[in-house]
Amino acid sequence: MATPTFPPWTLYLAEGTCAQAVHIALIDAGAEHQLRSVDFAAGEQRGAAYLAVNPRGRVPALVTHRGTLTEVPALLLFIAQSFPAARLAPWDDPFQLARLQEFNSYLCATVHVAHAHKRRGARWADDAAAHEAMRRKVPANMAECCARIETEWLHDGPWVMGADYTIADPYLFTLAEWLEGDEVDPSAFPRLLAHRTRMQARASVRAAKAAMAALAG
Amino acid sequence: MATPTFPPWTLYLAEGTCAQAVHIALIDAGAEHQLRSVDFAAGEQRGAAYLAVNPRGRVPALVTHRGTLTEVPALLLFIAQSFPAARLAPWDDPFQLARLQEFNSYLCATVHVAHAHKRRGARWADDAAAHEAMRRKVPANMAECCARIETEWLHDGPWVMGADYTIADPYLFTLAEWLEGDEVDPSAFPRLLAHRTRMQARASVRAAKAAMAALAG
Repeated sequence: MATPTFPPWTLYLAEGTCAQAVHIALIDAGAEHQLRSVDFAAGEQRGAAYLAVNPRGRVPALVTHRGTLTEVPALLLFIAQSFPAARLAPWDDPFQLARLQEFNSYLCATVHVAHAHKRRGARWADDAAAHEAMRRKVPANMAECCARIETEWLHDGPWVMGADYTIADPYLFTLAEWLEGDEVDPSAFPRLLAHRTRMQARASVRAAKAAMAALAG
Repeated sequence: MATPTFPPWTLYLAEGTCAQAVHIALIDAGAEHQLRSVDFAAGEQRGAAYLAVNPRGRVPALVTHRGTLTEVPALLLFIAQSFPAARLAPWDDPFQLARLQEFNSYLCATVHVAHAHKRRGARWADDAAAHEAMRRKVPANMAECCARIETEWLHDGPWVMGADYTIADPYLFTLAEWLEGDEVDPSAFPRLLAHRTRMQARASVRAAKAAMAALAG
């Protein structure tokens, strides 16, 4: 049995964002939780109510019995450490744990950032021509990221860390769902595509998708 | 006594980069190590010899007895876990460890990325006007990051995590050294400036600076 969390943790998330990785990991861990959807279309992430949860106005945010945590790599590691029986990280092997963190850092600081230049160019420049120039480069940058993931990490499989499913897998899966929208053909990266298909078959992923659909209802 | 590492780990680094954070942490941990400078001015990071070390062509890279690791947050956590006696991370408290990782994720995925738009715009767009538009926004973005760090994290002090010095401190220090170059006046952020001054007085920081200066020759 997983450790109960009283009161249950609350995950603030939005559909189509990297918060899905944390949602799946909570289910994988058996962590009791409730969901709160943040309506990005209505700009709710910039409203006072949500800024009181996360002053940076981003999702995910996880409200725990000890306080609120943000940033996907931190949340994933927190879930893995809090629910050791789920064995979601190689906790007792510093080198393997560092390899896992290396991958998650690459996803957050390079892959997610490459993707964000499609719609979030206003973060880094103020004029429309620059935003358009950024958008144009997103497919090539995302394809380069996929090629690196394919050759540097997915050579053993079936999971990012090899034989063992870890918190890296829902994170990769979540970003890999963005590829078609970023004009990258995932069939050019057969290991990555196989990983995505493998993830889609997992009960935790199906449960996360169903819970999110019910929430969006 | 710190655990010896045989053969000693090798840190690939370059002056003025985020690799300094890892260098300082190695000294804080008492980890035996040797340094290899990568000549960015000569484009050595894109040469075949270095790409065999890190196929992504970035520093830092840490060659250990078990393989090569990259990405600053991963390396910092690896050093902290490998040298527990140095107490560089709140290893036994999942919530506090997550807070530390949240901060380091913010530095790598938001602050470092904001800074990189000054000189590395070619990563995200192909035309010169877009690069110039990105450069123009760097001072405001870096100032916003500083304001968040000042209010969200440095309220307790003297260190990022409060009373205890951790791997977050050399990382923050290293990025805070970039502020003047990014046209941000650090005196507008007194806690951040005090943190930087406090770091400059530490023996490990002085040792790292001296070793780097000797290497640069």
